[in-house]
Amino acid sequence: MEKDSYRLEAFSDGVFSIAITLLALDLRVPVFETVNSKNLFEALLKEWPSYLAFTASFMSILVMWINHHGIFKSVRKTSSELFFANGFLLMLTVVTPFTTALVARYLRTPAASAAMAVYAGSFIIISIAYNWLWAAATGCSHATEHLNRVTRHYRLGLPIYCLATAVAFLNPLLSLGICIGLWIFWAVTMREA
Amino acid sequence: MEKDSYRLEAFSDGVFSIAITLLALDLRVPVFETVNSKNLFEALLKEWPSYLAFTASFMSILVMWINHHGIFKSVRKTSSELFFANGFLLMLTVVTPFTTALVARYLRTPAASAAMAVYAGSFIIISIAYNWLWAAATGCSHATEHLNRVTRHYRLGLPIYCLATAVAFLNPLLSLGICIGLWIFWAVTMREA
Amino acid sequence: MEKDSYRLEAFSDGVFSIAITLLALDLRVPVFETVNSKNLFEALLKEWPSYLAFTASFMSILVMWINHHGIFKSVRKTSSELFFANGFLLMLTVVTPFTTALVARYLRTPAASAAMAVYAGSFIIISIAYNWLWAAATGCSHATEHLNRVTRHYRLGLPIYCLATAVAFLNPLLSLGICIGLWIFWAVTMREA
Amino acid sequence: MEKDSYRLEAFSDGVFSIAITLLALDLRVPVFETVNSKNLFEALLKEWPSYLAFTASFMSILVMWINHHGIFKSVRKTSSELFFANGFLLMLTVVTPFTTALVARYLRTPAASAAMAVYAGSFIIISIAYNWLWAAATGCSHATEHLNRVTRHYRLGLPIYCLATAVAFLNPLLSLGICIGLWIFWAVTMREA
Repeated sequence: MEKDSYRLEAFSDGVFSIAITLLALDLRVPVFETVNSKNLFEALLKEWPSYLAFTASFMSILVMWINHHGIFKSVRKTSSELFFANGFLLMLTVVTPFTTALVARYLRTPAASAAMAVYAGSFIIISIAYNWLWAAATGCSHATEHLNRVTRHYRLGLPIYCLATAVAFLNPLLSLGICIGLWIFWAVTMREA
Repeated sequence: MEKDSYRLEAFSDGVFSIAITLLALDLRVPVFETVNSKNLFEALLKEWPSYLAFTASFMSILVMWINHHGIFKSVRKTSSELFFANGFLLMLTVVTPFTTALVARYLRTPAASAAMAVYAGSFIIISIAYNWLWAAATGCSHATEHLNRVTRHYRLGLPIYCLATAVAFLNPLLSLGICIGLWIFWAVTMREA
Repeated sequence: MEKDSYRLEAFSDGVFSIAITLLALDLRVPVFETVNSKNLFEALLKEWPSYLAFTASFMSILVMWINHHGIFKSVRKTSSELFFANGFLLMLTVVTPFTTALVARYLRTPAASAAMAVYAGSFIIISIAYNWLWAAATGCSHATEHLNRVTRHYRLGLPIYCLATAVAFLNPLLSLGICIGLWIFWAVTMREA
Repeated sequence: MEKDSYRLEAFSDGVFSIAITLLALDLRVPVFETVNSKNLFEALLKEWPSYLAFTASFMSILVMWINHHGIFKSVRKTSSELFFANGFLLMLTVVTPFTTALVARYLRTPAASAAMAVYAGSFIIISIAYNWLWAAATGCSHATEHLNRVTRHYRLGLPIYCLATAVAFLNPLLSLGICIGLWIFWAVTMREA
C-alpha cells in the first residue's frame, strides 16, 4: 500500500536537495589583479571561510535530512499539523544558504560575532522546528519507539546551539567550532545506532 | 497499480520545491560601510521587507502545493487538458520568486503600490489557473466530493486577491497584510479539514 | 514489478523541472531612476522580450517533458544508448535558459538575428537529440505503436526549427513567432491525441 | 517490497540533477560594445572555454550518476556508513559547478595551470569518495558481482585524474583533454557492458 506521506517526503527531499546544492553558489570564482597560477592558488586559499561555512552547512543539512528520513520512516498517515510543521522546518532549511553566506562573508571581519550569532541562532529555531515536527509525527506514527531512538541524540541540538549563539559574541570561531563539532558527534553516534 | 499521474506529480513536486527554494536567493548578504557587529545587525534588520515577502511567498507556495497534493490525491488518469492546466499553474508558480523580489525591493519606496499590485495580481491569475486545474482534475478523478472539500476554502482566493490588488494602490502594506492573512486563514482552516 | 527505467525518469524529471524553473531567474527586477509606481509599471512593460522569451521557452520545455513522458511510458528496460541519448537531450535542455536569456537580452537590438538564430538553432539540435532518444527507446519498448503516435506531431520540429533559424536572419520576431506557433500547434494536437 | 534505500536514491537524484543543471548558470550572456549580429556571434565563439568546461563537467556528472545508479541497483538496505559515504560524494558533486567555473574563467589566462589542477584534483577526491561509497555499498548489497562489473572501468579514474592533475602544471589544455577522454572512454565501454 502506498504511504499517504509519499508526496510529503518527495517534496521535502526536493527542498533539502536544492537547499544543499545552492550552498555551493556561494563558492565564488576569485577575481584578482595579476593573473597567474600562484596568485590563483593564493586567492583560492584566502577563501577558506567560504569552504569552512560550506562544509559545516552541507553536513548540517545532510544530518537534518537523515533525521527527517528517520522520522518519516515510521510515519504512515499525514495530518495538517504534520504538513505545517514540515513546511516550517523546510522554510528554515531554505534560509541556511543565506546564513551560511553571511558567515562566509563576515567571518574574518569585525562583524564576525553578529554573523555567527545569526548562523547559530538560526539552528536554535531549526531545533525548535524539529521538535515540533517530531511531536506532529508521533501522532501519525505506528512506531514511536523508533522515533525516540532516532531523535535521542538530535535533542542535544537545542542547548548546544544556544551555547554556540552565546559564544558567538565572545569568540566567533569557537562558536563555529561548536556547530561543526555537533554534526561530527551526530555522524559518529548515528553510525552506532 | 501505478497511478498514471505519477510523473505529473513528480514533475510538479520538483517545480514547486525549486521555486520555493529559489525564494531564498533574494535574501542577500548586506553590504555596508563600517564593518562591525552592531552595523551588521542593523543592516540585517533594515532588510525586513525581504523577510516579510519571503515568508509570505514561501507560505503561499506551500499552501498551493498542499492543495495541489489534495487535488491529485483523487486523480487516477491524466488528460492533455490536465497536463496544460498544470503547466500553466507551474509557469505562474515559477514567476513567484520574481514578483516576491519586486515587493522586497520596492516596498519601502514610492513604487510600493505598483510592486504590490503586480504581486497580488499574479495571485489573481494563479487563482484562475487553480480553478482551471480543478476543473480539469474533476474529469480525471474518482472522488469529486473529496475535491470539493479540498478546494472549498481555496476558492476564496480569487475575490480576496482582487481586493488586495485594488488595495495596493491605496495602501501597499495593507495589501500585503491581506495576502498574508489569506494563507494564515487557509492554514487554520486546513487544520480542521 | 518496478520499472528498470525508474531512476532514469526521476533524474530526467529533476533536470527538466530545474531547467524550467531556472528560466525565471532571467526575469530581473528593473532598476530605474525616479522611483514611483508609474515608472515601475513602465520599466516592467519595457521588459516584454523577457516575458515573451520566458513563455516561449517554458512552454517548449513543458512540451519536451510531456513528450519525454510519452516516450518513457512504454519503456520497460534500459540500455547504455538510452542513458546517453537521454543525457544528450538533458544537456541541451539545461542550455535552454542560456539561449532564452540571449533572446531576452538582444531581441530589441541590432543583434537580434544572431540571438534568434542561436535560439532556434539550439532547438534543431534538440530535435535531433529527440529523434536519437526515440530510436534508442524503440529498442527498449514493448509498444512501438504507442511511441509512433506520441512522436508523430513532434517530428515536425526538425524542419520547422530549420526554417525558424533561416528566418532569424531576415526577421527575428517572425522567427520567434514560428517557434511559439510550433508549441501552440503541439499543445492543440496533443489535446486530440 | 519497498527498498530501504529509496529515499537515499531520491535525494541523491535530486542533488545530481540540480548540480548538473547549475553548470549552465556559468554560460553567461556576453556583453560587448557595438551591438550587432556579427559581434554577438564572435562574442559567443570567444566563450569556447565555457562551453568546453560545461560539456566536460556535464558528461562527468552524468557518468557519475549512471555509476551511482549502477551501484544502488543492487543495494537493498542502508547503513550509516552508506549515508555518509553518499553524502561525501554528493558534497563533492555539488562543488563541481564551482571548479568548472574556475576552468571556464581562467583557461585562456596564465592561471590556467592552477585552475586545471584544482579541477582535475577535485576529481581525484571524487574518485576516492566513489571508492568509499563502493565499499560501503558492498556491505548492503546482495550482488557484489554486479557491483564489481559496474565499477571495473570506473576504477581507472583515480590514477588517470592523478595524471591529469600533474599534467595541468605542464599543459592545462592537455590536462582537460585527458579528463574529457576519460568520460568518452567510460561512455564507450559502458555501451558494451
